[in-house]
Amino acid sequence: MEFSAIQIATLINGKVEGNPDAKVSKLAKIEEAGAGSLTFLSHPKYVEYLKTTGASVIIISDEIAGEKPANSTFIRVKDSRMAFSILLDAYHKQQFSKTGVEQNAVVAKTAKLGQNVYVGSFSYIGENVSIGNNVHIFPNAYIGDNSKIGDGCIIYPGVKIYFDSVIGKNCKFHSGVIIGSDGFGFVPNSENNYHKMPQVGNVVIEDNVEIGSNTTIDRATMGSTIIRKGVKLDNLIQIGHNVEIGENTVIAAQAGVAGSTKIGRDCMIGGQVGIIGHITIGNGVKIAAQSGIGNDVPDGATLQGSPAFDHFEYKKSYVVFRRLPELKKTIHDLEGNKSK
Amino acid sequence: MEFSAIQIATLINGKVEGNPDAKVSKLAKIEEAGAGSLTFLSHPKYVEYLKTTGASVIIISDEIAGEKPANSTFIRVKDSRMAFSILLDAYHKQQFSKTGVEQNAVVAKTAKLGQNVYVGSFSYIGENVSIGNNVHIFPNAYIGDNSKIGDGCIIYPGVKIYFDSVIGKNCKFHSGVIIGSDGFGFVPNSENNYHKMPQVGNVVIEDNVEIGSNTTIDRATMGSTIIRKGVKLDNLIQIGHNVEIGENTVIAAQAGVAGSTKIGRDCMIGGQVGIIGHITIGNGVKIAAQSGIGNDVPDGATLQGSPAFDHFEYKKSYVVFRRLPELKKTIHDLEGNKSK
Amino acid sequence: MEFSAIQIATLINGKVEGNPDAKVSKLAKIEEAGAGSLTFLSHPKYVEYLKTTGASVIIISDEIAGEKPANSTFIRVKDSRMAFSILLDAYHKQQFSKTGVEQNAVVAKTAKLGQNVYVGSFSYIGENVSIGNNVHIFPNAYIGDNSKIGDGCIIYPGVKIYFDSVIGKNCKFHSGVIIGSDGFGFVPNSENNYHKMPQVGNVVIEDNVEIGSNTTIDRATMGSTIIRKGVKLDNLIQIGHNVEIGENTVIAAQAGVAGSTKIGRDCMIGGQVGIIGHITIGNGVKIAAQSGIGNDVPDGATLQGSPAFDHFEYKKSYVVFRRLPELKKTIHDLEGNKSK
Repeated sequence: MEFSAIQIATLINGKVEGNPDAKVSKLAKIEEAGAGSLTFLSHPKYVEYLKTTGASVIIISDEIAGEKPANSTFIRVKDSRMAFSILLDAYHKQQFSKTGVEQNAVVAKTAKLGQNVYVGSFSYIGENVSIGNNVHIFPNAYIGDNSKIGDGCIIYPGVKIYFDSVIGKNCKFHSGVIIGSDGFGFVPNSENNYHKMPQVGNVVIEDNVEIGSNTTIDRATMGSTIIRKGVKLDNLIQIGHNVEIGENTVIAAQAGVAGSTKIGRDCMIGGQVGIIGHITIGNGVKIAAQSGIGNDVPDGATLQGSPAFDHFEYKKSYVVFRRLPELKKTIHDLEGNKSK
Repeated sequence: MEFSAIQIATLINGKVEGNPDAKVSKLAKIEEAGAGSLTFLSHPKYVEYLKTTGASVIIISDEIAGEKPANSTFIRVKDSRMAFSILLDAYHKQQFSKTGVEQNAVVAKTAKLGQNVYVGSFSYIGENVSIGNNVHIFPNAYIGDNSKIGDGCIIYPGVKIYFDSVIGKNCKFHSGVIIGSDGFGFVPNSENNYHKMPQVGNVVIEDNVEIGSNTTIDRATMGSTIIRKGVKLDNLIQIGHNVEIGENTVIAAQAGVAGSTKIGRDCMIGGQVGIIGHITIGNGVKIAAQSGIGNDVPDGATLQGSPAFDHFEYKKSYVVFRRLPELKKTIHDLEGNKSK
Repeated sequence: MEFSAIQIATLINGKVEGNPDAKVSKLAKIEEAGAGSLTFLSHPKYVEYLKTTGASVIIISDEIAGEKPANSTFIRVKDSRMAFSILLDAYHKQQFSKTGVEQNAVVAKTAKLGQNVYVGSFSYIGENVSIGNNVHIFPNAYIGDNSKIGDGCIIYPGVKIYFDSVIGKNCKFHSGVIIGSDGFGFVPNSENNYHKMPQVGNVVIEDNVEIGSNTTIDRATMGSTIIRKGVKLDNLIQIGHNVEIGENTVIAAQAGVAGSTKIGRDCMIGGQVGIIGHITIGNGVKIAAQSGIGNDVPDGATLQGSPAFDHFEYKKSYVVFRRLPELKKTIHDLEGNKSK
């Protein structure tokens, strides 16, 4: 898609300085922008890049002094950062302009679709599924029987949602996300192998949850695995059966939470963290990357290590760990001294 | 789906106390059950929940004393836990009642399907594939050329099985499982980059293996990557080329096993464990979560740490690790004392 | 597929000793080969397996002395290892012999396909996509709008490539790979929850890159996430937004790289390694499995630990860590001595 400076200026209520017909087709940072790029300048420290940037159009805040490059066009606005953010949102939304059910999709007769819904080719919508308004389901997705998807959700290509799942409004699930697969529940039996516990619960995800690529969320053995509103999960995360994650908690990539653990609200959990099953983690907890959590955690704690403890204490211990060889030598010297 | 108390009582050979027409449509724990829920009561310690539960129907063991709530119906049986388990299985099986090849699936002419097979829409069955009886293949799955799938397998939506794979009976592969992708085999060459080793082996999976969502199992470079019968793999696990995993071994989420390693039978391997390539792990080995295994492990060992050693020894060392700063201070005090 | 000894000998310019009509249908190591298998013998230390192998056809180097088993046929060549490698390549290439767009695929009218392209059933090629020559796209794949795929790429079943991605020549993406999903960019806002940063950049992957199953590569917030030529990524790896990975760097399974980090060329990064965002890692760096990298790393460093430091130093510290309980006892003994 291509836009002219004057089209953009109209959208963000700005004033053109230079060529109103200058064309742009992509967005870039000012230091990296080439011909055909749109960028913005909101802070004096970036003014120096005006000398070298190849950007065709630059949105610039009124308060910024700076000489317009010969090959660039300025759009002057009150707050260029905010104006650019408005443009980014518009750019983003254009990805979701399709509506209707594509010819190659399967939608069960008992499924109900809201208004303004898109269902891409090779997507499969099961029996009694309910899809809200303005939902965008890309190709190759699967929505199992009896599941509910709230208004405004975006389901990227290849997402798989098992039966009975309940999804709130304005959620985004990236490609490869699996919702509602069986929990890992096996009981040793008398023949020295494992009996599978039927996993008959479901997954409930509240509003405004975003889930990254290839993250997996298991259904509850009974009851529900629950992801509260505003939770953000990065890529390749594992959430076990019957886990509950509190509002606005953020978890980085490749972390794992084992079955039946409850995590509070407003937590920040680092990448590759492992959390054991059947524990309770309080509100506002912070956990450093790669830590292992084996016990309940009180509100507001900040932890590190595997097993984890207070992160300041961990850092202090680790400083000594790095110097253990010389410490050992000191001890042996002391011993030698003693035995003299 | 909705069932009445009398329908359920008939199925589990129980006696109704209360309203035989009471309707339920979901399963719940007694402490969480609301109207329309079915639950069970098998242990005296849960009797107190009879005062607060909203369950419409409660399966209760004969031996349990307990007053029926006004809004609930009892079904009396000899062993309510067992009766509930029978119901769970019935509930679970209803997910797999479809048969036949859906119109939008592709099945190669040279493929052979057993009796009572379901192939969902947008699934692709390659040349010379052999599918056993009572196999359930959900939509969006891919079964590559020459692969064999044994009787009773369940292949969830979006599973991808590469060519030449051999799968036993009664296996379950959850969504996003990848079987038979290339092993990570590259050899540095004279031009300072990597030559790909062709990966011409396959994957062999024996009976009763369950594999969790988005777990990946690479094909052998030559020969077979082998998963023995009864093995249970959780989600997001990586199994490298030419690995062999012994009978009934259980591996938790996000663990990884590098190429050519052999793991014995009846092992329990924790989440996020990493196991290096080309080693042998004995039978009955237990490995704590997040451990790293870099050497052969004898039968029956229990390990922790990265690199891992005996888990009791690890715990003892870790206790001291946590107190290293004060230990260091003690040493410095001793040094000071010495030098006086 | 079945081949006779004489067919194979013709292909690799070898001389048959034994039955020219001996048939083989699979490849195996000499110690594991059974009837119907083809194997090779290039090193004297494997000559002993001639007594026990069941291989029907054995490619053997001229320089190897060894008695032909009664049930086997030899094919004599100058270098049996090289000859076998030629056969492996031929075997491998037969997987990619299909061409054309299968009836059940969707290709947008504005998409451009090169010569000799295969697009499997249920694959979706978006608007303005450009596909080079000799590209093989298996079933159930998704290529988003405006993406470019270079000549000779192999896209395995179920790969998802988001819009605007740019892929070089001769890349291989295994099943479940996700290219171009949103970076994990959220900014806390005044209502105590998170505002999503629009992710309007893309992913650029250069030539000869191979990516393992279920690995995820996020698009840049702005600009590009860049994977340089010759990079090899194993399975289940996470690459964050705006990351750049240098030429010929190799990363093992389940490692993760957080946003905006730059990794140099010719690095070797172990399994389950975690690398924090916004740092720079030099060229030729080696990182041991499960390590955590929290700071810039100079060229040529070899690191271990979480947080990582020099791997020799780490090993020395870890040796002492294992003996901490006895060290503590020694210190207490010294204290006791002192206080006497």
